Amino acid sequence: MPTRHSTRADAPDQRPAHQASPAASLDHALPQRYRQVRRQSEALIAPLSAEDCQLQSMPDASPAKWHLAHLTWFFETFILEKFEPAFKAFDPAFRVLFNSYYTGIGDRYPRPKRGLISRPSLTEVLRYRQQVDERMLQLLEQIPEDHPERMQLNALTELGLQHEQQHQELLLTDVKHALSFSPLSPGYARRWPLARTHPEPQRWVGFETGLLHHGYDAVQDGPFAFDNETPRHPVYVAGFELASRLVTNGELLAFIDDGGYQRPELWLSMGWDWVQAGSHALPLYWQRGETPNNAFRNFTLQGLVDVDPHTPACHLSYFEADAFARWAKARLPTEHEWELAARSAAATQAGGNFVERGVYHPLPLNETADGAAHQLFGDVWEWTQSNYNPYPGYRPWEGLVGEYNGKFMCNQFVLRGGSCATPQSHLRASYRNFFPPDAQWQFSGLRLARGA
Amino acid sequence: MPTRHSTRADAPDQRPAHQASPAASLDHALPQRYRQVRRQSEALIAPLSAEDCQLQSMPDASPAKWHLAHLTWFFETFILEKFEPAFKAFDPAFRVLFNSYYTGIGDRYPRPKRGLISRPSLTEVLRYRQQVDERMLQLLEQIPEDHPERMQLNALTELGLQHEQQHQELLLTDVKHALSFSPLSPGYARRWPLARTHPEPQRWVGFETGLLHHGYDAVQDGPFAFDNETPRHPVYVAGFELASRLVTNGELLAFIDDGGYQRPELWLSMGWDWVQAGSHALPLYWQRGETPNNAFRNFTLQGLVDVDPHTPACHLSYFEADAFARWAKARLPTEHEWELAARSAAATQAGGNFVERGVYHPLPLNETADGAAHQLFGDVWEWTQSNYNPYPGYRPWEGLVGEYNGKFMCNQFVLRGGSCATPQSHLRASYRNFFPPDAQWQFSGLRLARGA
Amino acid sequence: MPTRHSTRADAPDQRPAHQASPAASLDHALPQRYRQVRRQSEALIAPLSAEDCQLQSMPDASPAKWHLAHLTWFFETFILEKFEPAFKAFDPAFRVLFNSYYTGIGDRYPRPKRGLISRPSLTEVLRYRQQVDERMLQLLEQIPEDHPERMQLNALTELGLQHEQQHQELLLTDVKHALSFSPLSPGYARRWPLARTHPEPQRWVGFETGLLHHGYDAVQDGPFAFDNETPRHPVYVAGFELASRLVTNGELLAFIDDGGYQRPELWLSMGWDWVQAGSHALPLYWQRGETPNNAFRNFTLQGLVDVDPHTPACHLSYFEADAFARWAKARLPTEHEWELAARSAAATQAGGNFVERGVYHPLPLNETADGAAHQLFGDVWEWTQSNYNPYPGYRPWEGLVGEYNGKFMCNQFVLRGGSCATPQSHLRASYRNFFPPDAQWQFSGLRLARGA
Amino acid sequence: MPTRHSTRADAPDQRPAHQASPAASLDHALPQRYRQVRRQSEALIAPLSAEDCQLQSMPDASPAKWHLAHLTWFFETFILEKFEPAFKAFDPAFRVLFNSYYTGIGDRYPRPKRGLISRPSLTEVLRYRQQVDERMLQLLEQIPEDHPERMQLNALTELGLQHEQQHQELLLTDVKHALSFSPLSPGYARRWPLARTHPEPQRWVGFETGLLHHGYDAVQDGPFAFDNETPRHPVYVAGFELASRLVTNGELLAFIDDGGYQRPELWLSMGWDWVQAGSHALPLYWQRGETPNNAFRNFTLQGLVDVDPHTPACHLSYFEADAFARWAKARLPTEHEWELAARSAAATQAGGNFVERGVYHPLPLNETADGAAHQLFGDVWEWTQSNYNPYPGYRPWEGLVGEYNGKFMCNQFVLRGGSCATPQSHLRASYRNFFPPDAQWQFSGLRLARGA
Repeated sequence: MPTRHSTRADAPDQRPAHQASPAASLDHALPQRYRQVRRQSEALIAPLSAEDCQLQSMPDASPAKWHLAHLTWFFETFILEKFEPAFKAFDPAFRVLFNSYYTGIGDRYPRPKRGLISRPSLTEVLRYRQQVDERMLQLLEQIPEDHPERMQLNALTELGLQHEQQHQELLLTDVKHALSFSPLSPGYARRWPLARTHPEPQRWVGFETGLLHHGYDAVQDGPFAFDNETPRHPVYVAGFELASRLVTNGELLAFIDDGGYQRPELWLSMGWDWVQAGSHALPLYWQRGETPNNAFRNFTLQGLVDVDPHTPACHLSYFEADAFARWAKARLPTEHEWELAARSAAATQAGGNFVERGVYHPLPLNETADGAAHQLFGDVWEWTQSNYNPYPGYRPWEGLVGEYNGKFMCNQFVLRGGSCATPQSHLRASYRNFFPPDAQWQFSGLRLARGA
Repeated sequence: MPTRHSTRADAPDQRPAHQASPAASLDHALPQRYRQVRRQSEALIAPLSAEDCQLQSMPDASPAKWHLAHLTWFFETFILEKFEPAFKAFDPAFRVLFNSYYTGIGDRYPRPKRGLISRPSLTEVLRYRQQVDERMLQLLEQIPEDHPERMQLNALTELGLQHEQQHQELLLTDVKHALSFSPLSPGYARRWPLARTHPEPQRWVGFETGLLHHGYDAVQDGPFAFDNETPRHPVYVAGFELASRLVTNGELLAFIDDGGYQRPELWLSMGWDWVQAGSHALPLYWQRGETPNNAFRNFTLQGLVDVDPHTPACHLSYFEADAFARWAKARLPTEHEWELAARSAAATQAGGNFVERGVYHPLPLNETADGAAHQLFGDVWEWTQSNYNPYPGYRPWEGLVGEYNGKFMCNQFVLRGGSCATPQSHLRASYRNFFPPDAQWQFSGLRLARGA
Repeated sequence: MPTRHSTRADAPDQRPAHQASPAASLDHALPQRYRQVRRQSEALIAPLSAEDCQLQSMPDASPAKWHLAHLTWFFETFILEKFEPAFKAFDPAFRVLFNSYYTGIGDRYPRPKRGLISRPSLTEVLRYRQQVDERMLQLLEQIPEDHPERMQLNALTELGLQHEQQHQELLLTDVKHALSFSPLSPGYARRWPLARTHPEPQRWVGFETGLLHHGYDAVQDGPFAFDNETPRHPVYVAGFELASRLVTNGELLAFIDDGGYQRPELWLSMGWDWVQAGSHALPLYWQRGETPNNAFRNFTLQGLVDVDPHTPACHLSYFEADAFARWAKARLPTEHEWELAARSAAATQAGGNFVERGVYHPLPLNETADGAAHQLFGDVWEWTQSNYNPYPGYRPWEGLVGEYNGKFMCNQFVLRGGSCATPQSHLRASYRNFFPPDAQWQFSGLRLARGA
Repeated sequence: MPTRHSTRADAPDQRPAHQASPAASLDHALPQRYRQVRRQSEALIAPLSAEDCQLQSMPDASPAKWHLAHLTWFFETFILEKFEPAFKAFDPAFRVLFNSYYTGIGDRYPRPKRGLISRPSLTEVLRYRQQVDERMLQLLEQIPEDHPERMQLNALTELGLQHEQQHQELLLTDVKHALSFSPLSPGYARRWPLARTHPEPQRWVGFETGLLHHGYDAVQDGPFAFDNETPRHPVYVAGFELASRLVTNGELLAFIDDGGYQRPELWLSMGWDWVQAGSHALPLYWQRGETPNNAFRNFTLQGLVDVDPHTPACHLSYFEADAFARWAKARLPTEHEWELAARSAAATQAGGNFVERGVYHPLPLNETADGAAHQLFGDVWEWTQSNYNPYPGYRPWEGLVGEYNGKFMCNQFVLRGGSCATPQSHLRASYRNFFPPDAQWQFSGLRLARGA
């Protein structure tokens, strides 16, 4: 998934090769979908001031204003410039300022300094969005469906919208990271209603040995996929068991109480170096409370709250997820195992805690007792033990977009299932998100596996 | 001068010891002076947006908004809290947020992260200023002149205003540094009118050997001084010659053309390390132009302009100033030599290019032919070869303010004379500014000396 | 393979779990094998002075003297201390000095400072070896074969010898790295006889799709294996083609001539960062020659020689191997593919260029024309695109040795096949060596693959 | 003093300008002095093995073997090459290997990697010394006293010997630093006899205000001086008091017990950063003992010993010396003050604890009760509050030697008086040693001053 590691996150001109382009079937709804996705980005900054939208709290994160401008730059540069007969840039300087990493497009502004772009102002960027939107909608309405370039226009537009949805999640996680530095612990949204939970105990769900067909399938997964989800290919998977739900804060507290952050034998060698170099003793955004009843506090997009034991653990690095699993005498699943479970009858995206719910935080699971695996979609991205590698027979898309995914297949791990900050329509069972093992600022948690 | 190096710059509660307190004589004019100085700070941000005021481009610099809030925090914490019978903080969280470095005052927010304080907003900070100003003015009007604490109130208020003036210069240099990262090279002010110059050739002005009385003198220098300007003490100064004016861009261009930045023999050993580590080949804010007629361009507070050969060279580190002097077969003056010249009949602050002129850049000198030294005050701070050391018999002020100056007397060099960003009423012949030898972002230049 | 990355390399007390212990079958020959392996370590330092044996050229490398002492410490600590009734340490201080990373064993001396251990001297360390060897041989001869602890003694001894062989390769690569800093480019061995080669053109060898049984098999692979080679498990491998030989210097020169080190599109994103941060423009140990006939020179264990175009390319990082493969419109094989090829009829370890040959450098391949894959064993370790991950069902050995391999399964890639610095008896088709993608100082090269 | 900071320490070709050359008067004794000084260098490594002589424990330090070779390189390059009619280098590669920093001489080997020079061996370096010595002595005997170049030969030889003596001290302090990393705490020399002391209480010795003539004077200071000790010049010094002896370990213990390393108000701002960044809580080479009677242990060139309360405190940085003085409600003297005291009737070099004593550690002072200042010469270098700056009218020597001192006049402080590792004949009252404020590995301590 289009994320945030080093230069990769933001930047795709991801033009699917013709034969792979599935977007043709979408065109009817495209202008409407365009409006909806673009508006959602603006809705996300409604609670923020111009100053909030300026913040960049680390090189891996970008200001909200930069996200808004860059997403618009994508449509302007890759679509308007190509399809508008009398194309004229909104502002030529934006070509450099809001390019994310394309050397093909020319110079770009250094990533760690994006927080220093005070000009254009947020107001100006919103004007930029409005103008580009008007021009995009005109294009989508004017070019006839049987025009020879229409298929490419649709494909690129769909890609731009997928790109926009990826950045919507990044925008939220970047804003959360930036606001966390404020001693005022400001909330982004109103506090969610945490009803009392009848917690689901962790059960083990069994899966049989078999030769799985793994990877993107248009029938099951819908009309769009990134190249890294292809090709579909056989994988031999030995029988295993998967936990019925995500690991919770309560379980993480037991790990902490048991000295989890102080015991080198629980950690990968590189993970232990990370613990010591960063003095990590708690998950990201946790702090110690001031009373015994209030032992730990948690900075969320709703402000500072008590740590709830039944809520899925979140903002864990791969190192933490792996150490927790070892402590629990279990392991992380592979991405094959996860995908097998996610395609099972009981699992479904419907009703998952995605960004549309407006909660912006994972939610506790009420008891289900149905013997199935739950919370596979939404809530938190689930770390897998699978490295982010090419599938056998992987071919990057042709053209510039070929750099979108393949270049990052090194020292990263795959996460699956989407989170409370992911748009539901952006996710599918074959979707592969990926981050380096020390990344914590995404909504990342884990589910245990064992056997095999 | 209270500046910006590491933690020092911002932070003084600088309460002059009683016997040293000269502020008593100022009280009549104090409310008026208070209004004038405080308004000047706000006038300085008039050309800036809220987003501009949020920028922090390096750990040594602070956002303009932070300056505005911190200066107000100074009056609230050191004066209102002490003198108001029913003191109530504007917002208790500000005590931490806008403390610069006082461990005595309690926790403080980490300096390199000041750019991450989006809340309070600029609007809120301006409200904070307004409320504190009203309360300060009430105090200044209500406490009678013969009240036993009145003298201390006056002294602290004067100190707060001196502190505010120091930060006004920092605010401008910090804003310049931040805006310089914009590929748009935005101007802060309108372009200054650069009239044609009949340039003053550099002449040598001679001074005789003698036993100078050096340091602050209330009669010559006015009612206020920092502790580092005291005590007045005898210094034996051998005869020397001082250049009649500042080194110009044209002279610096000759140094560059002569390979100045590539010749290790011209540099201090540490300076050469600095050149190589930072790949320094031009002064800060210079870039190569695109045509031969336009060989070098210079980012200024007026935007990007051609380098003018008659304008004083500016934004030089000590290393650069020292290397230039060696190349010119001369040397930097000592601070004693500078002070001797500055106290001579011909030199005067009047008419200097200080911040009040609104030019925010040094100006070329028209020919004078009077045999005197010019440009001693205003335009650019002049590096001296003197280390920032205590004067013989130096005693820091008592109390917390004792930490204000003495703690920084290590690995810094003295600069003299004020700049185009210094308030004129803040400067005097005994004033000692100081920065580490690699600092460039102040308006710092040089004047040559020889002999002795 | 037991190597050198961070703290892992040296340190195993790798006590195979009882049921897995295959060493029982070795006992007859054990004293003889013990003598042979131990003598080989000492033979390796014959060309070196005490000062040479003192050198540590980077934190990842250790002095030859340290290797010699640490290997002895292993036998003393894990075997003599356990089995000798009246055990007395040779020198109690050695317990800390020559511990590699066991927190279980107590304190250890910081790895990057091993080059500062001048005392004990090399002479003293050789005395230490001699004494421990005498005591070890006594043990091996005295404890009867039917003694209840005999099986464990054999297993630990075998482990100690495997450990010693791992370090023999490290000792050579560390010495090479250290000597490379000498402007005298001293040789370690005499120049090898490079006969004229009738070079083998690269051919493609095809392999069919199938369900491979992958991993250690005692019948094929001999009585010993590390835990990371187990368990044997099924893997579905799609049909592919493998190059008949290793990539050569001549091919690498074509890559260099084609701007390979200057073209970001050929590199992984992280690889390109590595190229730029380290200004990499040539393989490790290459330098430009002084004449056109002598375009590139190569530091080897035989001293500085001309780059031979038919010799396998060597000392490449994973980043370089991956970029070369992309440039060649091919890819790196997976470790499954490599193992499949290595188990094929034609491939055999016999005759491989291992350390026993005394060449200490890969050798060019003379034409074979038999349609098979050659050079699979010896010459250079071959980078695979497989991450160093646990096999399905992997269980670390019990006890302290459990930390030997599993802890390093993060951000490393698998290399296969052994090198000209590997003892032949240490290698097998299931052997997994592993290094981070930026490591260059091992004898590491590549073979191309395509298809699947 | 020719020391060790960055590149400067080792490197001088320091050819005094003709008019300043005092060496002519030495010629009679020169061959004898040559032999004596050169032999002393070799005597210093008698207790060391070849491996000891190989160690480099930090970039600022060099291996003993490197010192021995570099000192010989000096005579070979600057004298033999010039005066021998048929000059032939001992080994041309040494020209690069043992050049310290002269770009004028050509390439040089990178300083931080000197510990990686295992070849030439120590034996070879000693042969190099022997050959060069024979050739030097031949020259000194053959060229007649009235030969036109004889004066220059004498001057350069004298400079080479001064250079050698500087490095003798560095060799000892570098060896001490290297051996300190050994967990065995090996001694370099036998333990010194610490007789019971009747400790001298600290008394204050008063000095009157006056115009001091400061700097090198041939009558008082002997025939040789470095350029940085000149010119002699008047300085106005206000009356002050100086402690009668050095600060002792006992006094330092009181500082430690009083929380000295934990109280920011005692430190320079930059010093406090240093304390925190390095977690400094004890002087260099101190460690906590294991019993109350044995509270602190001290690594010395005699091995690990108990801290003796009456011994002068040693291996202090300027930051520590300055903080101690502030805590003691005193200050460090200026170098003018120190020189005034050192030239007083009572002070004399005779009997100082210099390297000739073979103690290699400062010694406690027995009660004197004569009202004079003691321990001014030998024992430890005394930090002054004076920056290492040019004296008024300072002119560097002409030629390459002009780089010897002037280039380092930045961010360093002057130390005076020599130490237990300084050759007595190398020292004089005008001698200026200098180090950056964080340097600890020299024998550096302090004496208090007050008043002025």
